[in-house]
Amino acid sequence: MNGKPAVVLLSGGLDSATVAAIARADGYAVYALSFDYGQRHRHELEAASRVATALGVAEHRTAVIDLRVFGASALTADLDVPKHRSADEIADGIPVTYVPARNTIFLSFALGYAEVVSAADIFIGVNALDYSGYPDCRPEYVAAYERMANLATKAAVEGDARVTIRAPLIDMTKAEIVSRGHDLGVDFSMTRSCYDPSSDGSACGGCDSCLLRARGFAEAGIADPTVYAQPTRPVETSP
Amino acid sequence: MNGKPAVVLLSGGLDSATVAAIARADGYAVYALSFDYGQRHRHELEAASRVATALGVAEHRTAVIDLRVFGASALTADLDVPKHRSADEIADGIPVTYVPARNTIFLSFALGYAEVVSAADIFIGVNALDYSGYPDCRPEYVAAYERMANLATKAAVEGDARVTIRAPLIDMTKAEIVSRGHDLGVDFSMTRSCYDPSSDGSACGGCDSCLLRARGFAEAGIADPTVYAQPTRPVETSP
Repeated sequence: MNGKPAVVLLSGGLDSATVAAIARADGYAVYALSFDYGQRHRHELEAASRVATALGVAEHRTAVIDLRVFGASALTADLDVPKHRSADEIADGIPVTYVPARNTIFLSFALGYAEVVSAADIFIGVNALDYSGYPDCRPEYVAAYERMANLATKAAVEGDARVTIRAPLIDMTKAEIVSRGHDLGVDFSMTRSCYDPSSDGSACGGCDSCLLRARGFAEAGIADPTVYAQPTRPVETSP
Repeated sequence: MNGKPAVVLLSGGLDSATVAAIARADGYAVYALSFDYGQRHRHELEAASRVATALGVAEHRTAVIDLRVFGASALTADLDVPKHRSADEIADGIPVTYVPARNTIFLSFALGYAEVVSAADIFIGVNALDYSGYPDCRPEYVAAYERMANLATKAAVEGDARVTIRAPLIDMTKAEIVSRGHDLGVDFSMTRSCYDPSSDGSACGGCDSCLLRARGFAEAGIADPTVYAQPTRPVETSP
């Protein structure tokens, strides 16, 4: 696999699969990084492996980190994942599925990985529109992270390897992300977004992530390949 | 334990033990955070527990994270730790004991922990003088990290909990750190600094960390309680 190396944070969801496809289309050799962080939706790790293989990445590593040391999120602790919230409820405030400092931690591992593989570019699939209220998905956060990163590493200090944090989805709607991924040939049936899947891997259809995903396919006019445990009703369009 | 909560990164070494004592002396309730990151010098984790207990911390958590996913450092991979380097050699460039993005990763976990325990202050024992050439020990790095942190978390976005990264040792020599810790009653015999200890826990006396530590005690005029596997010769003073 040729091209400049780039680290891509790959969760196994729809967004990061599209980001990885964008990095490939831009000519990068993709070094994909996933995290086994005690998430209850571990099916996304298998999805990440499928996506990485399908895309022909240069390398795919999974870092084991224990975010349960903090508890306090419905994604890692024994809290109920909220279901069937309205667009207003999703847009209003930060939900219990928020994991403290998660993107900061993920980007920090990506920064270390980037230094090891001599990558100057780090891709992350954050999105400020349908961002479900997470503060570490905003453009000002990404810019501040990049500035810090360029003071943090041996490569940035000794070499000329300025680090760029690339967030190509940041201004896109979920429908635009679906369309872009579709155009790039992403097989979305490989991806997983649900925060609270059934034991057979089917999506719950009711968590914020399922609702936003379903709305994205509906608005993009692209068939949703997701297998839902029960029929989902996409959240209404206007927040 | 009373006082405002503060997260203190506690490695079990001389520096972080002094930092924790400073935080206690400043009236903070200390939430100590250590990392089991696959380091070859795991004896420091036992030292961290001893120090935490002696200081009377509010809580001590150890996060398990696997930095070996990156390899590439003498602290985590099967590389030789350099021994008996001169002060010039230690001051010149970044050594193989550098772990990519380590402080960035540690601070990111501290940020998550701080949010969970509602702490606005994070203490880290970085030091720009005897810093052994690590880029993520410099004041401009710490300032950039703080700026990013205040855009990253739910507490910073929804509340008024501005995060402050406190690095009280950043301008101190190792001798000044030893003196300060001594004045605050830190029992340095509990701490461990060696990068390459013997199986009985004694320090090698030759790695950069041993040499800098021994010099610190010598220059401070304070007896060095460290048990060395072989006699150490403190690195000469002037770099």
